[in-house]
Amino acid sequence: MRSGLAFSLVALAAVAGAQTKYDAQVKALTDKGMHELGAYSLLQELSGGIGARLSGSPEAAKAVEWGKTTMERLGFQNVHLVPCMVPHWVRGAKEDLTMTDASGATAPLTCCALGMSPGTSDEGVTAEVIEVHSVDEANKLGDAAKGKIIFYNGPMDPTMMNTFGAYGQAGGQRFVGPLTAAKLGAVGALVRSMTMDPDDAPHTGVTEFGANDPKIPAVALSIVAANSLHDAMAHGPVKIHLTTHCQTLPDEPSADVVGEITGSEKPNEVIVMGGHLDSWDLGRGAHDDGAGITESLEALRLLHDLGWKPKRTIRVILWMNEENGGRGSAAYVDYAKTASEKHIAGMESDSGGFAPRGFGVSLTAKKARALNKWLPALSNFEIERFYPGGEGGADVDGLADVHATIFGLIPESQRYFDYHHSSKDTIDKVNPRELEMGAMSMAMLAWLISEEGVPKP
Amino acid sequence: MRSGLAFSLVALAAVAGAQTKYDAQVKALTDKGMHELGAYSLLQELSGGIGARLSGSPEAAKAVEWGKTTMERLGFQNVHLVPCMVPHWVRGAKEDLTMTDASGATAPLTCCALGMSPGTSDEGVTAEVIEVHSVDEANKLGDAAKGKIIFYNGPMDPTMMNTFGAYGQAGGQRFVGPLTAAKLGAVGALVRSMTMDPDDAPHTGVTEFGANDPKIPAVALSIVAANSLHDAMAHGPVKIHLTTHCQTLPDEPSADVVGEITGSEKPNEVIVMGGHLDSWDLGRGAHDDGAGITESLEALRLLHDLGWKPKRTIRVILWMNEENGGRGSAAYVDYAKTASEKHIAGMESDSGGFAPRGFGVSLTAKKARALNKWLPALSNFEIERFYPGGEGGADVDGLADVHATIFGLIPESQRYFDYHHSSKDTIDKVNPRELEMGAMSMAMLAWLISEEGVPKP
Repeated sequence: MRSGLAFSLVALAAVAGAQTKYDAQVKALTDKGMHELGAYSLLQELSGGIGARLSGSPEAAKAVEWGKTTMERLGFQNVHLVPCMVPHWVRGAKEDLTMTDASGATAPLTCCALGMSPGTSDEGVTAEVIEVHSVDEANKLGDAAKGKIIFYNGPMDPTMMNTFGAYGQAGGQRFVGPLTAAKLGAVGALVRSMTMDPDDAPHTGVTEFGANDPKIPAVALSIVAANSLHDAMAHGPVKIHLTTHCQTLPDEPSADVVGEITGSEKPNEVIVMGGHLDSWDLGRGAHDDGAGITESLEALRLLHDLGWKPKRTIRVILWMNEENGGRGSAAYVDYAKTASEKHIAGMESDSGGFAPRGFGVSLTAKKARALNKWLPALSNFEIERFYPGGEGGADVDGLADVHATIFGLIPESQRYFDYHHSSKDTIDKVNPRELEMGAMSMAMLAWLISEEGVPKP
Repeated sequence: MRSGLAFSLVALAAVAGAQTKYDAQVKALTDKGMHELGAYSLLQELSGGIGARLSGSPEAAKAVEWGKTTMERLGFQNVHLVPCMVPHWVRGAKEDLTMTDASGATAPLTCCALGMSPGTSDEGVTAEVIEVHSVDEANKLGDAAKGKIIFYNGPMDPTMMNTFGAYGQAGGQRFVGPLTAAKLGAVGALVRSMTMDPDDAPHTGVTEFGANDPKIPAVALSIVAANSLHDAMAHGPVKIHLTTHCQTLPDEPSADVVGEITGSEKPNEVIVMGGHLDSWDLGRGAHDDGAGITESLEALRLLHDLGWKPKRTIRVILWMNEENGGRGSAAYVDYAKTASEKHIAGMESDSGGFAPRGFGVSLTAKKARALNKWLPALSNFEIERFYPGGEGGADVDGLADVHATIFGLIPESQRYFDYHHSSKDTIDKVNPRELEMGAMSMAMLAWLISEEGVPKP
């Protein structure tokens, strides 16, 4: 790459960003944001410093304290906690998974217990494996599943260009596959990791058992392990021996962290933005969702330090317990339902700290067109469009109940599931500039809503 | 991140990609491309297998042979070489750079010689340093530069959101800074690496001395080294001792590699696409420009293997010597000027193998609007728009002389200069899906031009 193309792109940038009445604000945000890269500094404290922070853990408690202290230090107003009780699941000692193939040869397989799954007995479980590729296929097993270990091996569809779509499609195997197997009388469940990166790191995540449901041990296999098991099964029946040590302890007290800049003209109209403070216990919760937390904090910091006075209240919420319960989200929605103030918009970043591409919005295509006037002001941060009919994220979607218009930051999606819920979700995978672009996108959109209001769903 | 958002994005993807008459082709390309990830396999051969391949090196000769063999294996037609003579610059032994500060303390600084710069004598050069931040500032030094080492320390502007713009602006310090210093009588030049990643890896690149110009040793400093030197200078004069061992050997014979699918209806109308086969000697030329090479090869492979018969000829060119001479580009333009065939379009990928965002095109904004009808067919590969007034890349831009319309693939730009021209430009920085999306974008655009023709500049 040499200078010719480079110089031409200076001109291209000018073409892309037509003049708008927000040009001065865009420039001020950009100058401050890109020189200071404040979101990344915050991520170093949260993901680097505190690390993994699963609900109920000491690290999650530290993260709450850090969130509150940070908001106070940054000069936010009305900093407070919204308390909630959260599940307290612990992984315990390292899982052990061994397969014995038709020839009698044994081999270890890399796995990790799924969140909220029960542990095995100390002796573990041993059973023959049946491979399926979807929950539907498992359901069709009927009595054949009894006493067996069900192996969900349906891959994420590589032809779905937005990887979140592929996750949604394959993810049912993890969300409800183990429960489905339990109801059929299976004694364990193995789930191919929800990733397209073909390496040996397993990706955890929640699996859903109701209070009165039968429960069985359930683990995610790394892609290498899933492929090995599949290959072994081509030569005859394979037996699995699995030991896990997870436990679900009594609920723990925890909290959402809340702070704001109170509106100068309509303080009673509230724009919420945030991400979730908890993370899985593997890795260090950098993209999921340290990114959303630090983008949101940085967005409000930028507005605060630039001295802008929003007409409406702009509030940051660091939600607790997105990963395995949604208790923090529910607690805030409960508050919002009885509050005298009016939540006009909610915005979440929970798709990683990659370069932004757009915002999903809970409006019809027709109503969403009214937002296109804002695209020139957002284009400097690489926001290309609003995606109508979208949700915002698991934490913020509940604010639809109080008639808020919901937004979700949509970054570039290709790398997210390489790291998601695995030991690889660490800060070295986050580019400081891309993260700051997310923060600036959120700051600008919050500012625009504060200035002009927003269409109702 | 959990299922709620994921499922909604399936719907979003459908919204984004309205139905077009090319839907079947888009689906076929996507199915084949994303299942096979052929571009990445080729990149493993080129960047992983052959590695760095600076013009004139044995590895560059291997890359030419590999390109030809690969095209033949893939079933391309009229596979041949377009010969050219290329510069043969060699770095030689590791550079040595030591600073002595005002207190007499010495410290090593990490650097690498700039491409085409001369070596020092065996004893090296020793001189006091003067820091400037642009070529203009250097020019103003006048006689003060005599006998000194000029330290260009102007950073890439972090507020330019497209990093190529920042590279274009700061890059003059590397391209012509050393020559400027030489003309002022300086004895050496140090240039802050053209990157925003603040680590200790220096980034090389060409510096331009004409045949009759005075030449002085010139190196890139890592960002860590540049900052250390700057800090040391705050406490008084700093002396530098620099030894480099580079040499420019006699020109070597080399070649562009060319192959095609000949058009079924208008074989005489040619659409060219490609990247450059040479790379710098540091790293392994993965993003620069293994990505462009393998995206182009894969684009034609996909069309070939899908059995599509383009109306016009679609040709892939692996250009030689983009980095330090442009001889391969010139050789092909010379051919094109006298050929009986008509080059209607040229397309290059030389901005890294990241997720695509658009195409630059050498049309006015008004004429480029005619291309917007193609965006629905390109949107599945995350192509959002055509950027009018753009260039395509250093290799392809010369085809403007034969009135071709020039296109340049524009991927996400934030990470490119983290790796560019440094030891970090290795295949682990390339995401296989993002690379394939570039390949599919190029395949689709070439197909659309082949089917429908293209407006003239």
